[in-house]
Amino acid sequence: MTSELALGPGAEFDAIRELLARWGARAEGIGDDAAVLSLPRGDALVASVDSAVEGRHFRRDWLTPREIAYRAAAAALSDLAAMAAHPRGILVALCVPIAWRDALGELADGIGDAADVAQTKILGGNISGGAELSITTTVLGSAFTPLTRGGARVGDAVYVTGRLGGVGAELDALLARKPRTAHRARFAHPVPRIREALWLAERGASAAVDISDGLAADARHVAAASNVSLSMDASSLPRCDGVSVEQALASGEEYELLVTAGTQLDAAAFESRFGVPLTRIGEVAAGSGTVEIRNARVASIGGYDHFTR
Amino acid sequence: MTSELALGPGAEFDAIRELLARWGARAEGIGDDAAVLSLPRGDALVASVDSAVEGRHFRRDWLTPREIAYRAAAAALSDLAAMAAHPRGILVALCVPIAWRDALGELADGIGDAADVAQTKILGGNISGGAELSITTTVLGSAFTPLTRGGARVGDAVYVTGRLGGVGAELDALLARKPRTAHRARFAHPVPRIREALWLAERGASAAVDISDGLAADARHVAAASNVSLSMDASSLPRCDGVSVEQALASGEEYELLVTAGTQLDAAAFESRFGVPLTRIGEVAAGSGTVEIRNARVASIGGYDHFTR
Repeated sequence: MTSELALGPGAEFDAIRELLARWGARAEGIGDDAAVLSLPRGDALVASVDSAVEGRHFRRDWLTPREIAYRAAAAALSDLAAMAAHPRGILVALCVPIAWRDALGELADGIGDAADVAQTKILGGNISGGAELSITTTVLGSAFTPLTRGGARVGDAVYVTGRLGGVGAELDALLARKPRTAHRARFAHPVPRIREALWLAERGASAAVDISDGLAADARHVAAASNVSLSMDASSLPRCDGVSVEQALASGEEYELLVTAGTQLDAAAFESRFGVPLTRIGEVAAGSGTVEIRNARVASIGGYDHFTR
Repeated sequence: MTSELALGPGAEFDAIRELLARWGARAEGIGDDAAVLSLPRGDALVASVDSAVEGRHFRRDWLTPREIAYRAAAAALSDLAAMAAHPRGILVALCVPIAWRDALGELADGIGDAADVAQTKILGGNISGGAELSITTTVLGSAFTPLTRGGARVGDAVYVTGRLGGVGAELDALLARKPRTAHRARFAHPVPRIREALWLAERGASAAVDISDGLAADARHVAAASNVSLSMDASSLPRCDGVSVEQALASGEEYELLVTAGTQLDAAAFESRFGVPLTRIGEVAAGSGTVEIRNARVASIGGYDHFTR
């Protein structure tokens, strides 16, 4: 854990102390040049990094500092879910402007919340000053056989966890300065589908991606990596209440999983286990990286942009 | 590898393509939700994260973009050296303002240079926009027995690699707008002491830290973690040409290693192997986290600040 807040003598150590006090037992082994972590024998390391930058990925008036930090770390943890990896630890690099200094404890709480949700620990980090708040989260996980985007097989079915569109609906309301929707929790507190992914991988899921760029764009990643075609029926998309098919297709930062697997997957068992639906929305066909979406007026396959809708 | 530059349609993928083109074979396995890496059986994972932020850790007029990015990644890799870990991979999160967009290729080259120096690969990353350039580097390494700060034993000697003070001298010249010094390379292109650390660990080094905050401050970390006292003779410090004892003590971002080990360490063999001196500068005594520096007019044990000297 290193700090360069440059707020005056002692301020950087105060900042680290504040983080560590908030994290308590959720921080582990901090204090050397690097973190040390033993992985289960035979497992591969799975690692990803994700940044959340003020004004680009979040706005201060939309979320509390705790929610902002939770969401940043949860987004990174969702990448471990998409690989069906067990979370093993988090490293967090914070750039904290003076104007955010008083919120440091709440930011720490949000990161701690994400560690709790993923049942993992904060192993290290870095703190420095900056012109805008940024939270860069590195997640470390392990898996004996990571679930990649490249394993979809012709004849597999395409599934999606949860219900889509709530995040986009809330974001639309925020952008239009309308009252908050019933979907605020999905925007402020997305839950990475970690246990769900492990369950799916144990039952033969062949490929997965998390829906951070919107369903169609992320489906394309699977299609390309697997060198197949994904054909999906938009009318079968599980949607949040009041969300149109098109909104569900376009909504990003959902952090639900798009998964391919054999058609025998027991969706009812999944739902009863996790309280989250698992819906079959299409099939994998021969092809070369294409995605077909039936029964949608606009087959949005562009990338998701945070603030330009 | 994810991107959110928000520079317009396709721009983010162009940016990723540019990075990957520059990196060539130095990038490995990029394109899934997370990187997958196998560690040698029995090794622990060693991981650290470090941020370099424009205006705080570097200034654009002092270094080329390539040097800035190299230095950012090298600083993170130095943490692996301090743990005597074998580098296994780098993840890099870039915040790139519009004004830096044209320098993206050079930034990529600098990160590639650091990967080459450490004989490792770039496994993944993240790119987004931002108000100021920041480069957050996560380094992944492995070691059967990581070399921590906490292993110094009473009776050990204290050693330091290389020569100190060149970085501070160059930084002083830059701050005073004086001509560049003979030590510019030490400032612009510090070399993490990775192979040196492995050599030292194999020969019984008991503790190590890299000198990023200045010798005295980092010695204190070892003393505290090992619950001993480090006593050093400032007159024995290996200094760059023209650098005073006080400058050598105060100079930060040196990325040399302070190491404790038995007194039988063969410094001549080290120097002939690496072309870098290994100098005995003190001893480890009973104590509780204190550092004593003899023969210095000012025993600077404050932390190192980047721009306020």
